[in-house]
Amino acid sequence: MAENKEIEIMQSVYDKNDEVAAQINSELTQSGIYAINVMGAPGAGKTTSLIQIIKRLKDVTPYVIEGDIEADFDTKTLQSLGVKAIQINTGGACHLDSPLIGKAVEDLKINNGVLFIENIGNLVCPAEFMIGEHAKMLISTVTEGSDKPYKYPLAFEKADIILINKCDLIPYLDFDEDFFMKGVRALNKTAPVIKVSGKTEEGFDKVVSWIMDKLNA
Amino acid sequence: MAENKEIEIMQSVYDKNDEVAAQINSELTQSGIYAINVMGAPGAGKTTSLIQIIKRLKDVTPYVIEGDIEADFDTKTLQSLGVKAIQINTGGACHLDSPLIGKAVEDLKINNGVLFIENIGNLVCPAEFMIGEHAKMLISTVTEGSDKPYKYPLAFEKADIILINKCDLIPYLDFDEDFFMKGVRALNKTAPVIKVSGKTEEGFDKVVSWIMDKLNA
Repeated sequence: MAENKEIEIMQSVYDKNDEVAAQINSELTQSGIYAINVMGAPGAGKTTSLIQIIKRLKDVTPYVIEGDIEADFDTKTLQSLGVKAIQINTGGACHLDSPLIGKAVEDLKINNGVLFIENIGNLVCPAEFMIGEHAKMLISTVTEGSDKPYKYPLAFEKADIILINKCDLIPYLDFDEDFFMKGVRALNKTAPVIKVSGKTEEGFDKVVSWIMDKLNA
Repeated sequence: MAENKEIEIMQSVYDKNDEVAAQINSELTQSGIYAINVMGAPGAGKTTSLIQIIKRLKDVTPYVIEGDIEADFDTKTLQSLGVKAIQINTGGACHLDSPLIGKAVEDLKINNGVLFIENIGNLVCPAEFMIGEHAKMLISTVTEGSDKPYKYPLAFEKADIILINKCDLIPYLDFDEDFFMKGVRALNKTAPVIKVSGKTEEGFDKVVSWIMDKLNA
């Protein structure tokens, strides 16, 4: 197949995805839902961070759509804490797309609250696909190393808020925070960058303040 | 576009990739090169592991093709250690494919030795694309958590050898090795699983023994 035919087809996939995403975003807004697309590498602590955030939310109903290739551990964990959460298994696909989210939002039947959409653990592909979100939260970790903004620029460029998780492990690592921040700011001048730890619970109050500001804006 | 048209196109991409991969594999074999596709999530310690492996190789010439979306830190690190390494930047693409590797192998002009091809940091897409390798090495880490085989099954299923890196951090984590191994063995009965640490250098002698056995087979 000619290469420009492939490019044309990919463009059509992106265009269709973005069209559905815009429609989902509009419907969520009308229902009083603020949606956050939660992205990060495998094992970055996306679900652990959501648990820390959700338990700090006051007078706001949280909802979660959990994206995974297979398995549903995280959804069960969230449900056992009383959170309204549903699972999407992509069965191989490396990112969530807007048609998948449209169906899940319909199934959840939600209004007035904050919807966290936990994307597939992947620092590459999820950043390319809008899924109806109002904001993108990127969860990076000190264990992944300080060169990640340089190697995976799109995710850092598109993020509205960046968490640096697993900060309790800093004493045992060679994480260079200045180098990391220099890489982030070359791509993204404005997103707040907040150091957190799912273990010590450090930093999550600040994350929740940022979410509440967005909800009340 | 109709969905089955998209599926048909993807199938054609896979078929074309695998055809080129088979040709590269045959050419490498004829040149006395054993090629290892090194896969792992962002920050799993792929380059750090390669450095530990390469410095233990005796009477075998190592070559490296470094895959990254952007940046060339790892190639420069390897070259500074005297390793013949070249960089591939995919400029956004989430995995290496065989046409990219075919070009890089031509540029490297190599024979008689072991070629490590460090794939893009991604636990999903690289596992779907053969790139001419004789074996796949998967690098997982204790910091990513023990549920990874369940969530990213294809990478674990396809691996010929699995490293569990960053084992020096086990005392500070809740890594459940039994649960991890149960997940691995449900997918992959035979691949050796070796605990390593880029920091303490634990385990890499065993990895090199495995490679030497393959080279001498």
